[in-house]
Amino acid sequence: MSIYLKRREKLYDYMAEEGIVMVMFEDTEKRRDPSIRWMTGHPGDAMLFLYVDKQALLVPWDSNMASRFADVDRVIAYAEFERRPIMAIQGAVEYFKIPFGSRMEIPSETPYPLFLRYVEALTDFDVLCRNGGIHQEVEALRTIKDAEEIQLYRNVSAITNDLIDLLEEGIRSEVLKTEGDVALFIEAESRRRGCEGTGFETLAAGPDRSFGIHAFPAYTAEPFATKGLSILDFGLKYKGYTTDVTLTFGRGPLSRAQERLLLLTERAYRIALAMVEDGMATKTISAAVDVFFSTSKKTMPHALGHGIGLEAHEAPVLRNRTDNTWVLKPGMIFTLEPGLYDSVHGGCRLENDILLTESGMEVLTKARIIRL
Amino acid sequence: MSIYLKRREKLYDYMAEEGIVMVMFEDTEKRRDPSIRWMTGHPGDAMLFLYVDKQALLVPWDSNMASRFADVDRVIAYAEFERRPIMAIQGAVEYFKIPFGSRMEIPSETPYPLFLRYVEALTDFDVLCRNGGIHQEVEALRTIKDAEEIQLYRNVSAITNDLIDLLEEGIRSEVLKTEGDVALFIEAESRRRGCEGTGFETLAAGPDRSFGIHAFPAYTAEPFATKGLSILDFGLKYKGYTTDVTLTFGRGPLSRAQERLLLLTERAYRIALAMVEDGMATKTISAAVDVFFSTSKKTMPHALGHGIGLEAHEAPVLRNRTDNTWVLKPGMIFTLEPGLYDSVHGGCRLENDILLTESGMEVLTKARIIRL
Repeated sequence: MSIYLKRREKLYDYMAEEGIVMVMFEDTEKRRDPSIRWMTGHPGDAMLFLYVDKQALLVPWDSNMASRFADVDRVIAYAEFERRPIMAIQGAVEYFKIPFGSRMEIPSETPYPLFLRYVEALTDFDVLCRNGGIHQEVEALRTIKDAEEIQLYRNVSAITNDLIDLLEEGIRSEVLKTEGDVALFIEAESRRRGCEGTGFETLAAGPDRSFGIHAFPAYTAEPFATKGLSILDFGLKYKGYTTDVTLTFGRGPLSRAQERLLLLTERAYRIALAMVEDGMATKTISAAVDVFFSTSKKTMPHALGHGIGLEAHEAPVLRNRTDNTWVLKPGMIFTLEPGLYDSVHGGCRLENDILLTESGMEVLTKARIIRL
Repeated sequence: MSIYLKRREKLYDYMAEEGIVMVMFEDTEKRRDPSIRWMTGHPGDAMLFLYVDKQALLVPWDSNMASRFADVDRVIAYAEFERRPIMAIQGAVEYFKIPFGSRMEIPSETPYPLFLRYVEALTDFDVLCRNGGIHQEVEALRTIKDAEEIQLYRNVSAITNDLIDLLEEGIRSEVLKTEGDVALFIEAESRRRGCEGTGFETLAAGPDRSFGIHAFPAYTAEPFATKGLSILDFGLKYKGYTTDVTLTFGRGPLSRAQERLLLLTERAYRIALAMVEDGMATKTISAAVDVFFSTSKKTMPHALGHGIGLEAHEAPVLRNRTDNTWVLKPGMIFTLEPGLYDSVHGGCRLENDILLTESGMEVLTKARIIRL
């Protein structure tokens, strides 16, 4: 059985339990959902329909791409439905011969006005659009990486770690001088090593800009890793899966305030890492870091971390908020990324990717704070 | 009066006419909407609230970024609302002292389950979420570029054209040999010339992959512009605004089928260009191209073009579909991009950016089919 069919089997079971006859997924420019890639291997724009009797129909924008990548029971080109989502879902209903009155579920991200159009077009059916339904079930299933995914992560982490070393070398030897040098080095070297590219736009922020959580623009032709604190946040994408690491470069002489930012961030990182274990609430880890920073009169203006996978940000979130109920489990791969940002002294963030297994925790990546 | 305030003034008028007291815009990871940048200059994640009494409140994720870029009446950090959208909109209601029973409008892209949460949290108000409301009004206003925007487009088109010439030179002299060489040359040279970067991921597809409408992955370490047809689709982003051009490189000796793809695409492009004028329905131009191709027993598997601006794809669309009612008007900047794709012979697309003014049409960019 293919890995994709194995994943879909779990959803067919869920559908049967919930009495849902058909579900729709959508991966389009406006609403990206790599769950379709997770369930079929198809990496581009498409709609996917699952029928409870264990059949999968893919409606791709590009049929050539589907014939190369998609592991499904049937492909019908989107053009056959005049490239209209409503016609596509009606086509799926006909194709599967869905009985009147059946429950079907559409993505929880469907905009309200479009939801009304689906309901109108499917008056003979019970159309669900909800949080806590099958789309969140897929999100939850995706948090637990299977053996194939963990192997992919070992590969892409190794490439990421090679690049971290090469980046340190290039920056120390001043071959890489600007934000652009660093970012384009990553683009080129990642592809040379078989990656699809970067998992998100590389953020390379020299000392004048490192105070921003997300530097804007992402990188420029300005100097990188000159005196002060510089942040480099990047990820490599390999067969769909992305790493996500952040290095901070501190070139001295640093002020005491800058040294303090580095030390506090490193300590927060070690505190978080020491708390990682099966069954731990991610809220608890995040709260511990927030408390640690606050006793030093500092505030971290973002979450402590997040899951990674086919998306750079996916479940579980590691955040200190009452509505966060995520608990760490074996198979999860997630970031820890404490950071502090000061509009005068600059910013500092340290981010690595952590795999939790039955036998414990493993830090997959080797990002670090590098003193120059 | 700042350009941003001038743009907001049009919306305050619209709100007054429609009896809408407050509107919300959202630009976040899940739902990108550069309309906030268009109305305020703020280029990052944020919510924006406009009050009919001509006040604008920005709720940014990164306050440092807002203090540098945002032209609004008031900024309140998202963290003040515990980084929750519902609390932010309730905060805006309080801040503006919106009277009970007022109409307010939230983005038409709001997912149905989230829409329900807004309605529940705002029971004392009349919450609109619709197509054809203010969010589409902004979309329509953005199709007509003002003098500042047209000047930006002249600048970024000139940079784009310089790069097109350099790319041709680099490919002819075989300095640029792989898809990656070409794509990274664009990344580096665009930033060196003051661009924010590329407007979307560059698609560089050598002869083995050019049959795909959107090559996957976008570019690799494989050869580019070797024997056969290669497609290069890229755009440069300058102060938020992106160009969008596609060049096809044909390295001979080409087969008759390949020559035919090039000739038909060039002719389709000239036909489309000749039809551009004030008042012309974009459906008509698209239909003419479709008819031209079909008489040659070919089919174009995508739309003929689209507006460009703060998004790589924005209104108006140029598509041959009954529900397309867009009409060309002075101030519009849009692409024409006929293309044909053959899984054996490869693909060909020619795309340029067109500005329509009161005095006629202007082809801003100089993309072309290049025979090697």
